[in-house]
Amino acid sequence: MNAQDLPASPETRDRILRTAFQLFHEQGFNATGVATIAREAGVNPGSLYHFFDSKDDLLLAVLEFALDLLGPAVMDPVEASADDAVARVFALLQRYRDGMQRVDCRMGCPIGNMALEVSDGNAKARALVHRNFERWADRVDTWLRDDARLPASVDRRRLARFVLTVMEGGLMQARAAGTLAPFDDSVAVLRDYFSRLGAPLRQRRRASGRKKPRKR
Amino acid sequence: MNAQDLPASPETRDRILRTAFQLFHEQGFNATGVATIAREAGVNPGSLYHFFDSKDDLLLAVLEFALDLLGPAVMDPVEASADDAVARVFALLQRYRDGMQRVDCRMGCPIGNMALEVSDGNAKARALVHRNFERWADRVDTWLRDDARLPASVDRRRLARFVLTVMEGGLMQARAAGTLAPFDDSVAVLRDYFSRLGAPLRQRRRASGRKKPRKR
Repeated sequence: MNAQDLPASPETRDRILRTAFQLFHEQGFNATGVATIAREAGVNPGSLYHFFDSKDDLLLAVLEFALDLLGPAVMDPVEASADDAVARVFALLQRYRDGMQRVDCRMGCPIGNMALEVSDGNAKARALVHRNFERWADRVDTWLRDDARLPASVDRRRLARFVLTVMEGGLMQARAAGTLAPFDDSVAVLRDYFSRLGAPLRQRRRASGRKKPRKR
Repeated sequence: MNAQDLPASPETRDRILRTAFQLFHEQGFNATGVATIAREAGVNPGSLYHFFDSKDDLLLAVLEFALDLLGPAVMDPVEASADDAVARVFALLQRYRDGMQRVDCRMGCPIGNMALEVSDGNAKARALVHRNFERWADRVDTWLRDDARLPASVDRRRLARFVLTVMEGGLMQARAAGTLAPFDDSVAVLRDYFSRLGAPLRQRRRASGRKKPRKR
């Protein structure tokens, strides 16, 4: 049986979504053809159109898919890797740094790219990009609300959104620079801000691989 | 004489650049056809190709054009509108806010868009986007270096870049939200950071229209 003859199963739909998400990230939405998505997902275009009426319909499904993935693929592992809010914030930023390093400072953030590429012409896509950003910031907000070191006067939700601002603005400049320096610089300033808020990042970082702590 | 018969003068080249800059900003680089640029600039495509070998060649010229424009069109008026570094920083951010408001939170920053749309596939364009960012941050750096209220320990260059990070990250989220709230939130946190650095934004803002100061 040829891969293109696979039945139109939920797994097929999922594979199309994963492939489209990856290709939109690599090449951008406009530059990616439906035929390419179908070919790389190993389905025939008819099967793709069985699930998605149009490329715009697929875009919305990809943004829903990204929204569903944000917790299990990004936020949950970061939350599990550290105990306190500030360590989680910087572990999250480190995660984006690692991803950016793996692809030689290309591609950037898949949702940030969508924010700039599809927001103006597609209200539904814009709303879903916004929901991705909000869910990201909401999760950081839950971490920050629990941190007693931050003064009560600090607006946690606003600070959570600021962390996203720094991540996106830093990644954008790293992409243009072709190096991580602008991202690292931005994160360093954010770290200074947290210090001045009374919540410095503690020096000992728990490695996400859960290595045995070094003796001191 | 028809507009399309205009001679291939330096003014024609300049008009093509302005038109391309505007269309790339409105629609994106990939979504803008050379024929559209020629038509909106009132030149025939042959005249466009007299100046620019290809659309990629035009892109590089547009990015050079933006680089030349940054001082006179953005930084100089902001610098003239306020006397101290911190006031200038927030006047600069206000300028982007005003622009974003005028277009109902669409379009965003022309250079930020390019950073995400053309960086990966075009090394020369990437380098020019980077130079635009660097020139922006360099100018903010010159303001911050003169501010005696900031502690000597503060890395001015890094802080200048951070201002750009906040601008770009904030605009991106404003575009996705369709409102200025994420931008305003991000600027508010940056303002708090400057306060904690010992350089709060003074409450009295000199209006850029140079109104007579109110009596107190």
